[in-house]
Amino acid sequence: MRRGGRHYSSASSGASSNLLFQGEPEQPVVKTQIPGPKTIERRQRLDKYQDTRAVHFIVDKHASKGNYLADVDGNVLLDIYSHIGSISVGYNNPFLKEQFRNNIDDYTSAIIARPALGILPDDQWIDLIEQSFERCKPPGFTDVFTAMCGSCANETAYKAVFMWKKAQERGDKAFTQEELDSCMKCQAPGTPNMSILSFEKAFHGRLFGSLTTTRSKPIHKIDIPGFDWPAAPFPSIKYPLEENKEANNKEVQRCLEITEHLIKTYKNPVAGIIVEPIQGEGGDNWAPPEFFKGLRRITTENNVAFIVDEVQTGVGLTGKFWAHEHWGLEPGNEPDIITFSKRMQAAGSFHKHKFRAPQPYRNFNTWLGEPVKAMYLRDILKEIENKKLIENVRTTGKFLKGELEKFQKGKYSDKVKNVRGEGLFLAFDMPTAELRDQLVDGLRKEGIESGGSGVAALRFRPQLIFTQKHADLVLNRLDKVLKGL
Amino acid sequence: MRRGGRHYSSASSGASSNLLFQGEPEQPVVKTQIPGPKTIERRQRLDKYQDTRAVHFIVDKHASKGNYLADVDGNVLLDIYSHIGSISVGYNNPFLKEQFRNNIDDYTSAIIARPALGILPDDQWIDLIEQSFERCKPPGFTDVFTAMCGSCANETAYKAVFMWKKAQERGDKAFTQEELDSCMKCQAPGTPNMSILSFEKAFHGRLFGSLTTTRSKPIHKIDIPGFDWPAAPFPSIKYPLEENKEANNKEVQRCLEITEHLIKTYKNPVAGIIVEPIQGEGGDNWAPPEFFKGLRRITTENNVAFIVDEVQTGVGLTGKFWAHEHWGLEPGNEPDIITFSKRMQAAGSFHKHKFRAPQPYRNFNTWLGEPVKAMYLRDILKEIENKKLIENVRTTGKFLKGELEKFQKGKYSDKVKNVRGEGLFLAFDMPTAELRDQLVDGLRKEGIESGGSGVAALRFRPQLIFTQKHADLVLNRLDKVLKGL
Repeated sequence: MRRGGRHYSSASSGASSNLLFQGEPEQPVVKTQIPGPKTIERRQRLDKYQDTRAVHFIVDKHASKGNYLADVDGNVLLDIYSHIGSISVGYNNPFLKEQFRNNIDDYTSAIIARPALGILPDDQWIDLIEQSFERCKPPGFTDVFTAMCGSCANETAYKAVFMWKKAQERGDKAFTQEELDSCMKCQAPGTPNMSILSFEKAFHGRLFGSLTTTRSKPIHKIDIPGFDWPAAPFPSIKYPLEENKEANNKEVQRCLEITEHLIKTYKNPVAGIIVEPIQGEGGDNWAPPEFFKGLRRITTENNVAFIVDEVQTGVGLTGKFWAHEHWGLEPGNEPDIITFSKRMQAAGSFHKHKFRAPQPYRNFNTWLGEPVKAMYLRDILKEIENKKLIENVRTTGKFLKGELEKFQKGKYSDKVKNVRGEGLFLAFDMPTAELRDQLVDGLRKEGIESGGSGVAALRFRPQLIFTQKHADLVLNRLDKVLKGL
Repeated sequence: MRRGGRHYSSASSGASSNLLFQGEPEQPVVKTQIPGPKTIERRQRLDKYQDTRAVHFIVDKHASKGNYLADVDGNVLLDIYSHIGSISVGYNNPFLKEQFRNNIDDYTSAIIARPALGILPDDQWIDLIEQSFERCKPPGFTDVFTAMCGSCANETAYKAVFMWKKAQERGDKAFTQEELDSCMKCQAPGTPNMSILSFEKAFHGRLFGSLTTTRSKPIHKIDIPGFDWPAAPFPSIKYPLEENKEANNKEVQRCLEITEHLIKTYKNPVAGIIVEPIQGEGGDNWAPPEFFKGLRRITTENNVAFIVDEVQTGVGLTGKFWAHEHWGLEPGNEPDIITFSKRMQAAGSFHKHKFRAPQPYRNFNTWLGEPVKAMYLRDILKEIENKKLIENVRTTGKFLKGELEKFQKGKYSDKVKNVRGEGLFLAFDMPTAELRDQLVDGLRKEGIESGGSGVAALRFRPQLIFTQKHADLVLNRLDKVLKGL
């Protein structure tokens, strides 16, 4: 079945648990403390030029393979963090390397003369859009806006929303001289006091507009100026779901009511809202489809744009190509804008035609994305399709979630809480932040590279080639580390 | 002579006017109207997905060579706009292609597994910093912060400045609970009402923080929320310089006085200022070294950071690798942060160590730049060095400016005004915006691809391989078009 020009949505035969990446190591190898002596020496050298306080270890990129990330000390880790959820089809993927070599003239000329796509796109750019973005565009969207990273994907979406809203108010009228003059001083009416509503614990990026809508942790926001834009609560869901239906329904209704109240009353009028399908940085907070259906209803009724931030959830890891497809929105009732980056490599947004700026040069910049990223996306999509990787995510995800739930219900009921998520986009809470950090450290000593989310969650962000064999290895190490905590 | 680890500053033997790019076309070829029929057909196809209203024509990237940009209709244009000043060493440069092929394993593995550089840099990243950024780092700087584009290069610099300023106020004290709580709501004291001062007609990007500091044209700013940050006047210099010394000195002093007054009095305290050495989008406005020396003095005296935006002026086109090197600031008295993008390909900033964030994860994001861009920068720097391209810029620039001044003093004194700039980063004003637009259109018909700046200026942004032969061709067409206007 092919929907919206795309090849990924249909489930067919069950994926096998056979390895999807040939030639991987059999299991992790830990030879030294991590960070090891070579990492420490190289990190010191790097620290002359850049802040290295967040560095886990120094990677040996040529020795990394498939799901396994090697470091310069000869350690080889099974990676369930994937560079903060941004790698999808395997380190040193041979198919991608082959595609690269087969198309080297295109790749080199795209890198050597990166075009200003808004004024001088090349002939191949049109083919590339059709071979990449169009192949994974969800139903209901017309346009793709190409950008550089998740933050600017979101901020250019916000700009599109503000322009759309003001164009509605303005109708056929031209800009007034007062608007033209006042905007040069960043004053009303040319610079409007409008806002984007986001949700508590959200993460939408780190530049000035996107950081305003980020509400995950103080360390992201402190000391940086921000706009006076509203935040609504994101549902705090109780697990297991089947035992907490009524409480969760009430919580969803509470959050929807506050959202609508803020939209109707906030002093700086709300032009759009932005939400993640699962809050992937602020604690892996999942919410049921009813919440998002409610947001669609409220935004439509109040003439406010509905932006879905799929920077972390997009590209198959939830078991559908786009996580918002889990919500079952009716055709014609889709969100207005979907933003993407990370596993897409090519950042930007899909949007409905009405969010194209009313005049040229308004949602514009020098590069407007980059052809080489679209080439790479094209090749990644082929690999996802050829190896049925989204089916693998569903199968492996079901297995892994089931096993984590056994931990939660069984021998680790005091430590493993609130197992949740979709596909392989999974998480659970530890009782405290300290225990979570000890778990991440303990796993690394056992050869598993993982990461936290929010205050006390462990997040799973494996690649799409993560199979039951890898899940077994992780569960085995998890068991061992949890036992010792 | 090698300064600050770098190879580009010294002038030696004069560059020749021989071609610096072998195998280029002899001259422009115009076969069809521009846009031609194939551009029109392809633009319509592209317009299904993206806004094409700003498209000049569709490029044939494989047919473009050196200074010459080919379109899909078989037209071949001599390019003095270079994708809004972002291409430097020639379309389909054979040396870069060779480097690419020689290092294909590094290039492919860097593209296939783009790392999260803040947590998992690879071993080669350290070498790359030393081979690329360190080779062109101006004297007086320690750190390189790597980013994605000019807008985020500037915004991450602003963030560094705000954190530095607040850390000074805070001293050894930890964040207060009130700061931690209030920043989550974007309220003071955690979210401070501080500001970055910029200059009228400046262009610093298009995201929410950078767009606030952009003051070039209403079409960039209208309908988009912005911060209440101050703008000071940029000197309006009168030409020719030697006849207007006193007036220009007065104008510089006036602008410096207003700048200092705003720093001392603006209601949202000024943490830093940002300025372009030449305002490359807002009208190619040049100011004398005394202005920038004054800004350095004022910012030092008022404990305010001094950011120089070299996104457009960097990488040799002014006749020095960095335009701020024209100012003759004393060692120890350099600017605090230099931001870059465009011809650097790898975006970001050089800064003094004190602008490294006080805590990790604060000036942070998933990718923090991209190794493939640093590889490409390394190869571009080799080409600039091997071919002595900055010497070429000085020689060709002197010739071209001299000839434009002859137009201004002689037969086109009614049309060509205020010839200005450094190296090949040149511009002149036409009497009106309409005449300037007619000039750009007329030049395109004659096979010259150019662009405007500000209200009525024509800007020269050729590549670094633009020689006297190319300048002669442009002057010849310019003569012809001006005659007809």
